Amino acid sequence: MAELKNRQWLLAARPSGIIKESDFQLNESTVPPLKDGQVLVRNLAFSFDPTQRGWMSMDTYMPAIPIGQTMKAGTVGQIVESKRPGFAKGDLVQGLFGWEDYTVNGGEGLMGLQKLPAGTDPILALSLFGTTGLTAYFGTLAVGRAKAGETFVVSGAAGATGSVSGMIAKIKGCRVVGIAGGAEKCGWLTKEAGFDAAIDYKNEKVGEALTRHCPKGIDVYFDNVGGEILDDALARLAYQARIVLCGAISQYNDLGSKLPTGPKNYFNLIRQHARMEGFLVFHFLNRYPEAIAEMSKWFAEGKLKNQVDLQHGLENAPKTIIRLFTGANFGKQLLKLADPQ
Amino acid sequence: MAELKNRQWLLAARPSGIIKESDFQLNESTVPPLKDGQVLVRNLAFSFDPTQRGWMSMDTYMPAIPIGQTMKAGTVGQIVESKRPGFAKGDLVQGLFGWEDYTVNGGEGLMGLQKLPAGTDPILALSLFGTTGLTAYFGTLAVGRAKAGETFVVSGAAGATGSVSGMIAKIKGCRVVGIAGGAEKCGWLTKEAGFDAAIDYKNEKVGEALTRHCPKGIDVYFDNVGGEILDDALARLAYQARIVLCGAISQYNDLGSKLPTGPKNYFNLIRQHARMEGFLVFHFLNRYPEAIAEMSKWFAEGKLKNQVDLQHGLENAPKTIIRLFTGANFGKQLLKLADPQ
Repeated sequence: MAELKNRQWLLAARPSGIIKESDFQLNESTVPPLKDGQVLVRNLAFSFDPTQRGWMSMDTYMPAIPIGQTMKAGTVGQIVESKRPGFAKGDLVQGLFGWEDYTVNGGEGLMGLQKLPAGTDPILALSLFGTTGLTAYFGTLAVGRAKAGETFVVSGAAGATGSVSGMIAKIKGCRVVGIAGGAEKCGWLTKEAGFDAAIDYKNEKVGEALTRHCPKGIDVYFDNVGGEILDDALARLAYQARIVLCGAISQYNDLGSKLPTGPKNYFNLIRQHARMEGFLVFHFLNRYPEAIAEMSKWFAEGKLKNQVDLQHGLENAPKTIIRLFTGANFGKQLLKLADPQ
Repeated sequence: MAELKNRQWLLAARPSGIIKESDFQLNESTVPPLKDGQVLVRNLAFSFDPTQRGWMSMDTYMPAIPIGQTMKAGTVGQIVESKRPGFAKGDLVQGLFGWEDYTVNGGEGLMGLQKLPAGTDPILALSLFGTTGLTAYFGTLAVGRAKAGETFVVSGAAGATGSVSGMIAKIKGCRVVGIAGGAEKCGWLTKEAGFDAAIDYKNEKVGEALTRHCPKGIDVYFDNVGGEILDDALARLAYQARIVLCGAISQYNDLGSKLPTGPKNYFNLIRQHARMEGFLVFHFLNRYPEAIAEMSKWFAEGKLKNQVDLQHGLENAPKTIIRLFTGANFGKQLLKLADPQ
């Protein structure tokens, strides 16, 4: 195979405050020859997730990305060449690859090298049936244990995980209240996504709105933002409420400089016999097939919508991650490089 | 019945900072005549509990004690006169009475009017088999789900609830580490109460000591203090750890002026798939008999010790509650007025 040029976005600096374009540097290299056990993948689409801020900053559930190395991302790609048994040219694969045109992978990395069924839509694989959709599924059902008749509140509700979690709670018979920023997102929640109510945190007092929309208190609060909104929810818990800690995007930008603010109202957990529980979706790895099967059914029935904010072109990767942290995205943030061949 | 003089400690002021003797005022009144349905109780012993700080300050799970009213306390007493069916002179009873020689009660109050079996030791009824012992039982087993082979850490470990929770975890086969203040308390934990290790927070760095004593991380952390020690524990959780929120005595003295400090390290709940769960012992009311039966057996077998800090005389009630909040007490803080007749 002829020499292949490979554009790569390297991590240039650990972020301080909001991620900046200058935290990354574009590099061009040549794809190295394959070793036994490896595949060469042409990357088709990247996922953008709050947790990437952590990878850039420090050791988390995996070591920090070293400065000068390719920025990592959940990726769907197509095999161009294979020296790995069971993997052939043309196969669609998923893994924790990186912001580059081509990736050489031998099964290493947190997600390994997963083969996708032929004909899989890379966009669906990275959204509804990817980490964010699976996070919504397990967070809502396994951790939050949302049940019919309960009041379910989700923050970051127009985001990738938030919107899916609200729709799943709705399918399960909950009263669903979403918190999001701006009239457009809130309108989408009630008109398109089927939420019972939406709170615009940019234009409403969240605490007062929660009191109004949750007259019986909050049974499940799916937290995607942390900060003051988490405290507002803690102040309005129903008896035996569950708080699902999935992330805290309002706090991520501060990481590295200082610890996030702790929830001042955590005392209410005592009074309401309530629980706050965290998880990472990888903890449920052995239940992914069950989740994808159930969500596929709901998607086919039109009960689950897939809202994607799709950007284009490897050159726009840094701009796209900034969209996520400034709240510019509307639905799951993805970047598309190419269609499968 | 002749007129009975009744000394009463009234709440004189909402506390600011540490409770002071001047927050109470001694009053003398005459016991009113009984109405139908009421009993006249001679109080024998009072319980002292961190939650009383809340009752003095603000509406909690019950309305704040009004200024000028008798200070409330969990109490064991003996009936002097009864106009209530099923209750007779000489019966031992328990309820949320108050700091006074005599109480007239018609079954009202959070705990109602509970008859105790004849011959019950009032001290045991207010300690091991009272709210604090029951809190330890349900917190350790129902909320914390402590299991054999796990590492169980408890703060306020020489206190009423903390010491019993550690002993119960030990009975269940855990490695038990207690955090307490001072060499005497720590010596008691390892030599008398059977703890595997004790950390003296007044003379050791708690975080470093936890790292040393919990090489596999903390599976269950029973929190009685909140504040920095809660953050130290959160930083060292094992996978699927449970944090039991029972109270936060380091924070109570600040209540009324400002909200307590939130746990900055709550993010680790996400990484470790861990949970923080609060409860009030009243939530388990229907399981009290089961708990008392099991603890009675352990007590008879010598596996469960009852450590009581017993003060004497109604006149010393304010001094006794201050003992609790300055950490002067060693074991369950009680005040004895008289023996049963």
